[in-house]
Amino acid sequence: MTDTPLLSPAELEAALRAIGAERYHNLHPFHRRLHSGGCTRAQVQAWALNRYYYQASIPAKDASLIVKLPTADLRREWRRRLVDHDGDAPGTGGVARWLKLAEGTGLDRAYVESTAGLLPATRFAVDAYVAFVRDRPILEGIASSLTEMFSPTIIAERVAGMLAHYDWITRDTLAYFTPRLTQAPRDVEFALGYVREHARTPAAQQAVLAALRFKCDVLWSQLDALDYAYVSPGHIPPGAFVPPAS
Amino acid sequence: MTDTPLLSPAELEAALRAIGAERYHNLHPFHRRLHSGGCTRAQVQAWALNRYYYQASIPAKDASLIVKLPTADLRREWRRRLVDHDGDAPGTGGVARWLKLAEGTGLDRAYVESTAGLLPATRFAVDAYVAFVRDRPILEGIASSLTEMFSPTIIAERVAGMLAHYDWITRDTLAYFTPRLTQAPRDVEFALGYVREHARTPAAQQAVLAALRFKCDVLWSQLDALDYAYVSPGHIPPGAFVPPAS
Repeated sequence: MTDTPLLSPAELEAALRAIGAERYHNLHPFHRRLHSGGCTRAQVQAWALNRYYYQASIPAKDASLIVKLPTADLRREWRRRLVDHDGDAPGTGGVARWLKLAEGTGLDRAYVESTAGLLPATRFAVDAYVAFVRDRPILEGIASSLTEMFSPTIIAERVAGMLAHYDWITRDTLAYFTPRLTQAPRDVEFALGYVREHARTPAAQQAVLAALRFKCDVLWSQLDALDYAYVSPGHIPPGAFVPPAS
Repeated sequence: MTDTPLLSPAELEAALRAIGAERYHNLHPFHRRLHSGGCTRAQVQAWALNRYYYQASIPAKDASLIVKLPTADLRREWRRRLVDHDGDAPGTGGVARWLKLAEGTGLDRAYVESTAGLLPATRFAVDAYVAFVRDRPILEGIASSLTEMFSPTIIAERVAGMLAHYDWITRDTLAYFTPRLTQAPRDVEFALGYVREHARTPAAQQAVLAALRFKCDVLWSQLDALDYAYVSPGHIPPGAFVPPAS
């Protein structure tokens, strides 16, 4: 890294956006299949079931970052994410809304919460994300959240596509996504501002870019595992969710 | 688990062997393809490259267990594994022999060692294994090594199959596997004896069985990722090894 140049904040942001343009999971074949109506109900169930583990682990990831934040201002800022995901009362918040989505695909709520049918690759990828934020410096943990820069587009595509193509999915089932359209840009505003301000050496900037690449890998590999296990027959790993014959 | 019966040591061993019969990665389609000559050279390279990260991480896994072992006798027993993998001099030991295998498939040694072309799913699975042994009780860490009960058969199949089917692979390239045929049974003798003796409650026995299932998932998911990325076209994740056009 000795010859790596120091980027201006605007150049750093452009480099972050370029990573999204190459590696964000909206480019994955499974996502295109999901949004275009090409998934069976069983495949949508497998997606909802596996992604539940990601959603349910986000508060642990955010709390791992709060552990390290040195000021009340910073902790309060990041605490909003806990509120978004865990809500203010039973049945509210993003995790509860994801459970409702999973139930809306026909899955049993207790089975989803048990994570018993998870693909091992989902567990390994999500646990790697929580461990990354726990073990790395604050700057990298915050940078790893920046996939949210790219999420409003995918959410809009996903909701419109799923409502248009799956007659058994309702707007109510997809209620998870509505608040994300305002929460994600608000979260990005803080996180991107923090990264632009604090990544002031070439090494820190390279670490920030690597953190975003890592997070893209976390999301991408979850779709690889779904695509492998549930699209062509005979690939469901031992112990994972087997859709009921339809 | 309140109604889980206490198993005799022989019953516990039988339950462990039953897990291998259902979940060990010799049953995976990629392994059958590899041994039967159905892989391209690029696919064998991808296997060698990715599995290098597993091999290179085993000493960290074993050292994580040694950290917890309370007696010199136990630590000395487990230290043999460090010797097996890291050798007694540069160029000796299992990790060095795996590098030689990877070079024998035509890969550049420095590229393999860099792990730059690794599938993210490989990294996540292997890191999950190291974290498991670091974070769980000794008994579960030892139990997770018991996939070695099933390895002599797969090694014999693999070496014979690969020598018969790939004319560019030599016995020398596969030298990694020869000492494993004696090391693995010796290691199993200790680890299985330890588990039979120390898993004395239904809860401990269930934890031991879960540890072996977990380890089978670690191995299986690595082959899922290889099979997905390198068998049908268009699935190599961003940043991973792209075989040269042949």
